[in-house]
Amino acid sequence: MLVISSRQNPFFKSLLKLSSSRRERRKTGQTLLDGTHLLLALADVGGEVEKIILTPAALDNPEVLAVLRRFTAEQCVLDEVLFAELSDLPSTTGIMALYCIPAAAAAKTNGFCVLLDGVQDPGNVGTILRTAAAFGVDQVLLADECADIWSPKVLRAGMGAHFVLEMLEHTNLPAFAAEFDGDLAVTVLEQAIAPYQANLVGDLALVLGSEGAGVSQAMQEMASLRLTIPMGGQIESLNVAAAAAILCYERQRQLGA
Amino acid sequence: MLVISSRQNPFFKSLLKLSSSRRERRKTGQTLLDGTHLLLALADVGGEVEKIILTPAALDNPEVLAVLRRFTAEQCVLDEVLFAELSDLPSTTGIMALYCIPAAAAAKTNGFCVLLDGVQDPGNVGTILRTAAAFGVDQVLLADECADIWSPKVLRAGMGAHFVLEMLEHTNLPAFAAEFDGDLAVTVLEQAIAPYQANLVGDLALVLGSEGAGVSQAMQEMASLRLTIPMGGQIESLNVAAAAAILCYERQRQLGA
Repeated sequence: MLVISSRQNPFFKSLLKLSSSRRERRKTGQTLLDGTHLLLALADVGGEVEKIILTPAALDNPEVLAVLRRFTAEQCVLDEVLFAELSDLPSTTGIMALYCIPAAAAAKTNGFCVLLDGVQDPGNVGTILRTAAAFGVDQVLLADECADIWSPKVLRAGMGAHFVLEMLEHTNLPAFAAEFDGDLAVTVLEQAIAPYQANLVGDLALVLGSEGAGVSQAMQEMASLRLTIPMGGQIESLNVAAAAAILCYERQRQLGA
Repeated sequence: MLVISSRQNPFFKSLLKLSSSRRERRKTGQTLLDGTHLLLALADVGGEVEKIILTPAALDNPEVLAVLRRFTAEQCVLDEVLFAELSDLPSTTGIMALYCIPAAAAAKTNGFCVLLDGVQDPGNVGTILRTAAAFGVDQVLLADECADIWSPKVLRAGMGAHFVLEMLEHTNLPAFAAEFDGDLAVTVLEQAIAPYQANLVGDLALVLGSEGAGVSQAMQEMASLRLTIPMGGQIESLNVAAAAAILCYERQRQLGA
């Protein structure tokens, strides 16, 4: 078994760049999928990877072997120390894969779309993607300021949502909104109605703002619906991913009730 | 200005232990509050700290000075390098405080309680606390296996919820449930109804399970309500903090609608 153990190895160096640099991921169109959970989620939708990267110990792990049976890609064994440098996971299973980021689809002009207007925290972005996949959102569009959806932290929080969702990064959201044929709903604090007072079942673009500043002025001005979540507690502030979940649920409730 | 710059300084050593050890926090009944946001949230409810810890540079920061005006506690200046070792924040403002953890209240037997049955991710626990504070939850009770609510990551995600919420750690949840005078609702995947099909406006203890295993068998057996969130997408799985937000919202909707 050939084990890569040198930090000077060109393949290891390229992986290290991918794990830490958004620019590199964008340039190469590749990213790393870390851990068995993500890889199984990809296999479940018939996806393939470019190369599988393993630690020597992982080859004795039945969980890892079950993953290996789902892919035909070439395998490459990396020293534990080098592998740990690439991995973001607290308890790593010793398997990751090099993955080609799929081409983004064209922007939709109807259906149920979620627009991230500058959500910066990777955990929040990943959790919103997971929620969007769960509720059957047709497309998620992200403005430039958002966290990189193909970064390890967003992938981790997404729990496989990346492989079933249509996503579009670096979107000009006002331009998208101008073309969208349906309601544009923003989440704001003032001059707004409760989600259950609005009709959310039609074509809907739901805008979620950044953690600090909320929805941008430009998007607020284009909105046809202003929504605020009634709370009633002492601190009237919600995490943006919590707000996203509530609004997706409310739409589903209206569809089903 | 006396600046502590030695890693051997006993006060610094005690702070370092507090920042990293749950056992130390429990033993001393103290924790660290990191950053201006948490300290302002504490000041807003009239709270006080034991000691304020600053970097030399922070004393020139107007945002920090605004915080200092809200507290009377003694100040202590720490070298930037030592301060960075204590701080978990990506971009630190150079201010934190030593804080006495308030005594836990007695467990409630009615009202709206949220029970965390082994939620382990600090970000999830903090986000749930923030959601609970926003929706006016009366008490949050946590089983032994949950993340430490007074850890830096939970405090950060809580965004000040800790200072307005009643919280009880290390709770025997089945024993609490046996005494609770109201509905015990669990979130499960099978043999369950949608939240909007259930009456959630009365006395309610809402149980949220661990990220991997969900609600424990013991709590499921005691439940009077089994709830499942209808989703309709390809991946029917939600982050536990997203589920908590949806259920708190649904109760508020029923109260307000």
